[in-house]
Amino acid sequence: MKKLGYLGPRGTFTEAALRTLNVAADAEHVPYPTVTAALDAARHGEVDAALVPLENSVEGSVSQTLDELASGEPLVIVDEAAVNVTFCLMARPGTKLEDVRLVTTHPHAHAQCRGWLSTAIPDARVVPALSTAAAAEEVSDPASRFDAAISAVIAADHYGLDVLATDIGDNSAAQTRFVLVTRPTAPPPMTGADRTTLVLYQRDNHPGALLEILTELSVRGVNLTRLESRPTQKALGDYYFSVDCEGHVNEARVGEALRGLRRICSEVRYLGSYPRHDGVLPTMREGVSDEDFSDASSWLTGIREKGLS
Amino acid sequence: MKKLGYLGPRGTFTEAALRTLNVAADAEHVPYPTVTAALDAARHGEVDAALVPLENSVEGSVSQTLDELASGEPLVIVDEAAVNVTFCLMARPGTKLEDVRLVTTHPHAHAQCRGWLSTAIPDARVVPALSTAAAAEEVSDPASRFDAAISAVIAADHYGLDVLATDIGDNSAAQTRFVLVTRPTAPPPMTGADRTTLVLYQRDNHPGALLEILTELSVRGVNLTRLESRPTQKALGDYYFSVDCEGHVNEARVGEALRGLRRICSEVRYLGSYPRHDGVLPTMREGVSDEDFSDASSWLTGIREKGLS
Amino acid sequence: MKKLGYLGPRGTFTEAALRTLNVAADAEHVPYPTVTAALDAARHGEVDAALVPLENSVEGSVSQTLDELASGEPLVIVDEAAVNVTFCLMARPGTKLEDVRLVTTHPHAHAQCRGWLSTAIPDARVVPALSTAAAAEEVSDPASRFDAAISAVIAADHYGLDVLATDIGDNSAAQTRFVLVTRPTAPPPMTGADRTTLVLYQRDNHPGALLEILTELSVRGVNLTRLESRPTQKALGDYYFSVDCEGHVNEARVGEALRGLRRICSEVRYLGSYPRHDGVLPTMREGVSDEDFSDASSWLTGIREKGLS
Amino acid sequence: MKKLGYLGPRGTFTEAALRTLNVAADAEHVPYPTVTAALDAARHGEVDAALVPLENSVEGSVSQTLDELASGEPLVIVDEAAVNVTFCLMARPGTKLEDVRLVTTHPHAHAQCRGWLSTAIPDARVVPALSTAAAAEEVSDPASRFDAAISAVIAADHYGLDVLATDIGDNSAAQTRFVLVTRPTAPPPMTGADRTTLVLYQRDNHPGALLEILTELSVRGVNLTRLESRPTQKALGDYYFSVDCEGHVNEARVGEALRGLRRICSEVRYLGSYPRHDGVLPTMREGVSDEDFSDASSWLTGIREKGLS
Repeated sequence: MKKLGYLGPRGTFTEAALRTLNVAADAEHVPYPTVTAALDAARHGEVDAALVPLENSVEGSVSQTLDELASGEPLVIVDEAAVNVTFCLMARPGTKLEDVRLVTTHPHAHAQCRGWLSTAIPDARVVPALSTAAAAEEVSDPASRFDAAISAVIAADHYGLDVLATDIGDNSAAQTRFVLVTRPTAPPPMTGADRTTLVLYQRDNHPGALLEILTELSVRGVNLTRLESRPTQKALGDYYFSVDCEGHVNEARVGEALRGLRRICSEVRYLGSYPRHDGVLPTMREGVSDEDFSDASSWLTGIREKGLS
Repeated sequence: MKKLGYLGPRGTFTEAALRTLNVAADAEHVPYPTVTAALDAARHGEVDAALVPLENSVEGSVSQTLDELASGEPLVIVDEAAVNVTFCLMARPGTKLEDVRLVTTHPHAHAQCRGWLSTAIPDARVVPALSTAAAAEEVSDPASRFDAAISAVIAADHYGLDVLATDIGDNSAAQTRFVLVTRPTAPPPMTGADRTTLVLYQRDNHPGALLEILTELSVRGVNLTRLESRPTQKALGDYYFSVDCEGHVNEARVGEALRGLRRICSEVRYLGSYPRHDGVLPTMREGVSDEDFSDASSWLTGIREKGLS
Repeated sequence: MKKLGYLGPRGTFTEAALRTLNVAADAEHVPYPTVTAALDAARHGEVDAALVPLENSVEGSVSQTLDELASGEPLVIVDEAAVNVTFCLMARPGTKLEDVRLVTTHPHAHAQCRGWLSTAIPDARVVPALSTAAAAEEVSDPASRFDAAISAVIAADHYGLDVLATDIGDNSAAQTRFVLVTRPTAPPPMTGADRTTLVLYQRDNHPGALLEILTELSVRGVNLTRLESRPTQKALGDYYFSVDCEGHVNEARVGEALRGLRRICSEVRYLGSYPRHDGVLPTMREGVSDEDFSDASSWLTGIREKGLS
Repeated sequence: MKKLGYLGPRGTFTEAALRTLNVAADAEHVPYPTVTAALDAARHGEVDAALVPLENSVEGSVSQTLDELASGEPLVIVDEAAVNVTFCLMARPGTKLEDVRLVTTHPHAHAQCRGWLSTAIPDARVVPALSTAAAAEEVSDPASRFDAAISAVIAADHYGLDVLATDIGDNSAAQTRFVLVTRPTAPPPMTGADRTTLVLYQRDNHPGALLEILTELSVRGVNLTRLESRPTQKALGDYYFSVDCEGHVNEARVGEALRGLRRICSEVRYLGSYPRHDGVLPTMREGVSDEDFSDASSWLTGIREKGLS
């Protein structure tokens, strides 16, 4: 049986996301306390793969995931999942909403529920926890000083809590995207609706470097779906780029773009090609299909061998 | 006397940064518990200006600051400061390093001290706090369950703690950049080593939008020093850009670039032109000085009026 | 009465084109033997303006016109005209087609009638003349050694020749574009369907110089309708560019593009903004209208004065 | 013995250029009256190759050569030559300079000697000839109405004329470049200082088409040395591009650029890779050598097969 790690504890949105993946159906699910711990478990082979959050539609990228994947022993993404982030207020059985004075949750969840909190329980104080699930776990302890936790509904089940209010996030469309990573391996087959994730280190930090990087992609008709600049941790103003683009590394246009990036960057770290969770097809302009690339190669061979164009 | 807000409590790196600003010498310093609270104080005129962290050379941008400045009532940056982020382990007088079992600090500080922690006190557990200063404050309470805090040295003074170890960060070059914001006002005078901060919303999320944005800047010889994509909080994959560029809005090349961005973006929010803390002069290519722009304008007038080029 | 020079002699396509211009109705028409002579007459004020050919849809640009306008005393284009280039074979009255052995015409006309010549009078030899009209004039001399001339039908009238065959050009859509030039003067009013002609000298002949030039235009939404590289006459491989673009110099986008070119080129020579003969409207993308530019300028003023975007 | 055609008659600059090629040493040289005739001889195999002029540093491109190579049965360039264009005034023995009233020469030669003519023999009239050599041949006929010809010194030898004045061109640095063309064949070996000539037809005449074409080249580090737009002979404003670039089609960067052009253009006609006459090495930026391309390909293979970057 496969073992799949995830950012725990039980009851996180990550666990909810894991359950949406086909591969998870017959697998053992192993929670890890931090992103780093989950990724290290995948690196060391303790688990076959690990699911961690990559970006949230409200909070943005999960820096720790980006930075962990951008350095250290290589890992590749083989699948992704997304779940709606719906927050509930939950408490030990018997607690009433009007009694809630001290709440705990992850700071991101706190940020996303500010509107509801200020209206529904304006006098409550919120104390940060390591995760929304950790908050629920803490509250489940009868000796806890906290009255309630903001967490995913799955956590109420896990920790035997009552849900006092549901869908309390200010933005009901909030989603988090998770990636399933494993030790380096050939990418899964193309589906036609794939994504490729890259980490790009500039050769030097010159003006125009990013323009050059984007041109390598656009000239081959490869569109970006996410671009993050992250500090290289050397000095303020020195960045690497974390990039998602449409398409699969086995496609000709993506392959040629990667080779181009490899030639102008000091380092390109490939983080995987994998099916998009939303099945959105890439926007293709004329002349960039695999057939177009293949025709152009045959044509060039004719020129080189016989001078015939 | 001027009142200056800052991200508190007393003893944060932000307070240390505030003290480096000339304007702070004769001003009252008012700590606020969150970035939002500090910025709102500036918005409502409770303080004349507020200092908040914008980016850290290790952790990257401070998302909350970016998002707060990108929306809501407008604010502009009028100055910036940077401080080296040097962490100390501090405890109530009498505590010995070997007795430290439970540590509290901000998760970012925790992340930056992992190496030292795993070597010096491998068995200690670290619990997250709202800020490094809040951690110090918590530890200063004799009833606290925590043995020590990781915080700035300034906090040890404030809270009467003993420093058990200094400079325990894994990256001794770590720096944080802070910005002083105020209600909209004309920018401070040009110094020749200025920075301009912008928030850019794309007209639509089409492929190539970022390439177009960068081209508007590069064609006028305006170099970027920071680029962040941040979710607009509408859907995964919908971003705005937070940008720092070299130069002052009163310079012709910056002005023309801003007008160009204004024409291709759905919204451009100006967040201020202000002197760089490091005094680094912009990289200028031929043809983009104010004199070059002025000459070109006179020349165009000659064409329009008399057909003479 | 106005005096208008043109590339003569009487009977050229240039004269036919001149008659299509409103300004020609009440003017005296003065033929000049060469493009240089016609332009010099305009330069010295012998004529108020001169009409010369600029490009032909079959032969391409008229190099002499481009080079003459690109250097020497400045001239500006104030109008343009285009005529279909329809060739006739003409001879002294009494000559029959089957008797034609020796034909004279301009080499360009010869080139455009090759197909017809090889079929209709395959044994005839063609000798070059200075112009198609000069060829007709030569043939009109009873002592001429030539049997026939290829020329415009207008020349048959002028020189009393019989037309032996009409529309003998291989490409019946052939057109020539002519420009009316005068001493530097403010451009004629915008019509909405205008063209602007420029001569661009590169600062140095570096790789990418042309890409930079085109980017200055495209970033302001100014489209090219003609681009020629012409030798600067210094060395092989050293070029200047002769450019037509859509729009009028009084439009904001054209004005800003010109200022941009002025800043990156060693020299920009403005050759006029004038109504297009074909009334084709420019292709405009979003954000480049005069109103867009004006809004952006007001917006920038608000930023510079009050920090309000 | 090889047969090499050239633009005749004997005594042209083309013949002088032909003699500078190694391949010409043991070959039969066959003059043709026109560029078209010389190229057709190569097309039909009457000659092994043909030398024709391509561009002149004063007059610009030779349109007829460009247009002939851009359409019809394919031909490829296998070598090039350049000669200084030095004009002489020559006449039948016994003629004195002060007696010269009627001169004949090719219009381009006339254009290049205007300054000298207006000073030395201001009253002389110049009549156009098909070529400078044809002018010399005509003058060598004792019955000719012409007193003198402007031609290459080689023509004086051929036709038994006396040279009345040497180096009478206004620009003593004038050079003409010639290309040796043959039926399609594999290109000659790379020398490191090679040139590649292309003809590019746009898919449609949209704004930005040329910018896209130039970007395909620049992104692979391929520099242009010549760019001409030429009418497609369909309508005014519809152009094809004739391009020379640095490098050899067997180089990776040139090959990839060609494939890219093939994908975005409606037609790319390859006109040959061949050694430059001047031995100038290409300007190479970092990352575009054959080794860089080869490394990038191996790297991509590792990713596709094992996920290892």
